[in-house]
Amino acid sequence: MEKRAIRTPFFVVNPKAYLYGEKALELARCADRLAEQYDLDVFFTGQLVDLPALKRETKHLIITAQHMDGLRPGAGMGHVLPEALVEAGVQATFLNHAEHAMPFAKLAQAMARADELGILTIVCADTVEEARALAMLHPDIMVCEPTSLIGTGKVSGGDYMAATNEAVKSVSPHTLVLQAAGISTGEDVIRAIRSGADGTGGTSGIVAKPDPCAALEEMLTALHQIKEEGK
Amino acid sequence: MEKRAIRTPFFVVNPKAYLYGEKALELARCADRLAEQYDLDVFFTGQLVDLPALKRETKHLIITAQHMDGLRPGAGMGHVLPEALVEAGVQATFLNHAEHAMPFAKLAQAMARADELGILTIVCADTVEEARALAMLHPDIMVCEPTSLIGTGKVSGGDYMAATNEAVKSVSPHTLVLQAAGISTGEDVIRAIRSGADGTGGTSGIVAKPDPCAALEEMLTALHQIKEEGK
Amino acid sequence: MEKRAIRTPFFVVNPKAYLYGEKALELARCADRLAEQYDLDVFFTGQLVDLPALKRETKHLIITAQHMDGLRPGAGMGHVLPEALVEAGVQATFLNHAEHAMPFAKLAQAMARADELGILTIVCADTVEEARALAMLHPDIMVCEPTSLIGTGKVSGGDYMAATNEAVKSVSPHTLVLQAAGISTGEDVIRAIRSGADGTGGTSGIVAKPDPCAALEEMLTALHQIKEEGK
Amino acid sequence: MEKRAIRTPFFVVNPKAYLYGEKALELARCADRLAEQYDLDVFFTGQLVDLPALKRETKHLIITAQHMDGLRPGAGMGHVLPEALVEAGVQATFLNHAEHAMPFAKLAQAMARADELGILTIVCADTVEEARALAMLHPDIMVCEPTSLIGTGKVSGGDYMAATNEAVKSVSPHTLVLQAAGISTGEDVIRAIRSGADGTGGTSGIVAKPDPCAALEEMLTALHQIKEEGK
Repeated sequence: MEKRAIRTPFFVVNPKAYLYGEKALELARCADRLAEQYDLDVFFTGQLVDLPALKRETKHLIITAQHMDGLRPGAGMGHVLPEALVEAGVQATFLNHAEHAMPFAKLAQAMARADELGILTIVCADTVEEARALAMLHPDIMVCEPTSLIGTGKVSGGDYMAATNEAVKSVSPHTLVLQAAGISTGEDVIRAIRSGADGTGGTSGIVAKPDPCAALEEMLTALHQIKEEGK
Repeated sequence: MEKRAIRTPFFVVNPKAYLYGEKALELARCADRLAEQYDLDVFFTGQLVDLPALKRETKHLIITAQHMDGLRPGAGMGHVLPEALVEAGVQATFLNHAEHAMPFAKLAQAMARADELGILTIVCADTVEEARALAMLHPDIMVCEPTSLIGTGKVSGGDYMAATNEAVKSVSPHTLVLQAAGISTGEDVIRAIRSGADGTGGTSGIVAKPDPCAALEEMLTALHQIKEEGK
Repeated sequence: MEKRAIRTPFFVVNPKAYLYGEKALELARCADRLAEQYDLDVFFTGQLVDLPALKRETKHLIITAQHMDGLRPGAGMGHVLPEALVEAGVQATFLNHAEHAMPFAKLAQAMARADELGILTIVCADTVEEARALAMLHPDIMVCEPTSLIGTGKVSGGDYMAATNEAVKSVSPHTLVLQAAGISTGEDVIRAIRSGADGTGGTSGIVAKPDPCAALEEMLTALHQIKEEGK
Repeated sequence: MEKRAIRTPFFVVNPKAYLYGEKALELARCADRLAEQYDLDVFFTGQLVDLPALKRETKHLIITAQHMDGLRPGAGMGHVLPEALVEAGVQATFLNHAEHAMPFAKLAQAMARADELGILTIVCADTVEEARALAMLHPDIMVCEPTSLIGTGKVSGGDYMAATNEAVKSVSPHTLVLQAAGISTGEDVIRAIRSGADGTGGTSGIVAKPDPCAALEEMLTALHQIKEEGK
């Protein structure tokens, strides 16, 4: 199956396990409205049980799993089956996040199954060396985020961003790069994209704000602005 | 929150990753009709993305996750959040299945969170020694199934069934015992319950049959019959 | 094979990965001299490659692995074979430490293999509930240590010590209890044993001191004193 | 530290957990004699507790761990510390064997630590895609072995050998390639090297033979012969 094409710069709203159910849906509706208003590609992740409702109640978001396994239909109690995601309308999945590290062979299998079924792969790397090696597996999107910064609100340094962008593109030119660590303002968004990233996104920079929808609006406004400038 | 009370003998339909989406829903509708007809408590597991539809489209089934993690709302990318299951209408979860083994401390945490939120726990053990130890954590249901028999279609021996039933009850009298390995006919169901089990269930004994609904009907008819005899 | 009998109160010197090679040997020689002088049972752990030298160059220590797997001779690349430990003179092993958590079934297997080969099992638990459940597997020694305190230098509260001691003994009267978190002075040793523990021990409370041998001497002197009082 | 240079074609004797203690030492003495006689570079793996004796009692073997972790001296109970291996005379380590799969980030860390300390890295891959990606981390040796063939006595097909050799060299020209699956005769050795591999080796093809030393002699004789032809 063909995968959905991604327009850059894109954004990923990743509420991890902070939001679920009605609260997740509420933020998704906000993201959906902003995605339409600014004509941006926005990924939105959620708990697996919430993904069907997120799909049903939004129109513009790319509904995204936070993890997927590489099994085929059959045994595999408690594992996340790629075919089930596809039938539920899920179009993308994170893989190998630092909080859900995968053995290398399992990661490679899950990526192969995603390619087979048309699921966009968003693969996480910590160091420049890791990003370069994982780029050999040609993920659709490579998330570059120093593990030590996750959840800290500190942004990656410009050197790290430049080095990982370059490392990924030199190995896999069609892989899009997402610079993620510590994005919590419109300015962070602009800095990440200006560093050469194809996309950016946030977790605590959004969900830990008093008004997550307003925080998201600030970031997507900035993303839209930098996109317009680039034309 | 209070947990749903379980009437014995009960049955668990566990399609693992064999069925998903519309096919899972189809078997669930069949199970729902049989649960009503025979007035039996029937658990039905599924892929997490399928659980909301299973909940919405059935009335009598106890919708059950195949795995759950013990985290609290917050970080924890890709982990299964208990609160999200509850809000989606999930009432029970398997834990520590041989195909999704959990570190002991993680299992204990997930059980504590389930108890806190009113989720029924269905915990898997392999040997008599394991069943006795895990019974100390007072699961609602203990699944006794020799790992070496999973998926083989061979039923556990009567000695194993008697020994695990006794081991669990001696430690945790209120824990219900599910004898599971290799159940694929009405006779297997009768033998498991007569061995002293509170419930039984199946995977490949159902989903690998040419007509899974008919296979399930044979098993639930047998369960109903033995229940009537017991009155 | 019969296991070595343990005299209480005992002590465990656990240098984790802080010490290795000659430095580990140096502390082991100090511990060996103190074990002889005070006629105490002292366990000493180390990197697996260091255990043969620790065995060869000491006379009184119980040489202890920090982890062991439950496999049998055969395949199992990179796993720690129980038979190999026995032939190397290792008499005990930690299992399920919070820094090396084991799936429950693997832990049960490793304990069964240790019992078969006469290796003393030192099994770690975090909460009272975990300690009670693991006690059903009858470890030789249960280490009770709140995971949140490991490496902090904070000692467990008296309530925790009393509750875990009681929980373990009520289920498995012959299992010895080791209270471990944050022991770094002779006073800590006395408090742990007075709480009802059969033994105690330390890591950073010893190896992070300017003079680890002196720190150990202070602790073993205290242990000896409380042992004498108990006569 | 500088790593030991490896002369090709080389051989790896990998007894996994089949042999330990005196039996492992016996085979190592045989391998040592053959390594000297044929002037070949021979790696020999073993249980960690056996490595010091293997080192002490042989002169020509490259003593090799079956797994190593990427930690630094400090906490990390039960993990294999690189510094401890070095001090014990270990010169190489397998990493990411299918029977001891590592999360990708942990593998990258362990490889970085090995490079820092002069330990040769022998990294395992299953598919061509995996081999190509892991080659980006520049292991000293890449083991190409279809996981499905491990322990079966079936050799990899010539296509697989050619494709993995090419994949590795195109990404990392200095990485040596070890073709491993199912080597159990001198002919298998010749076929693997003629396929373009830099080295080969065996487990069950050696240890499961009635006379492991004779089996090894047959293989090393073949390796020597093909080396002579290549001059």
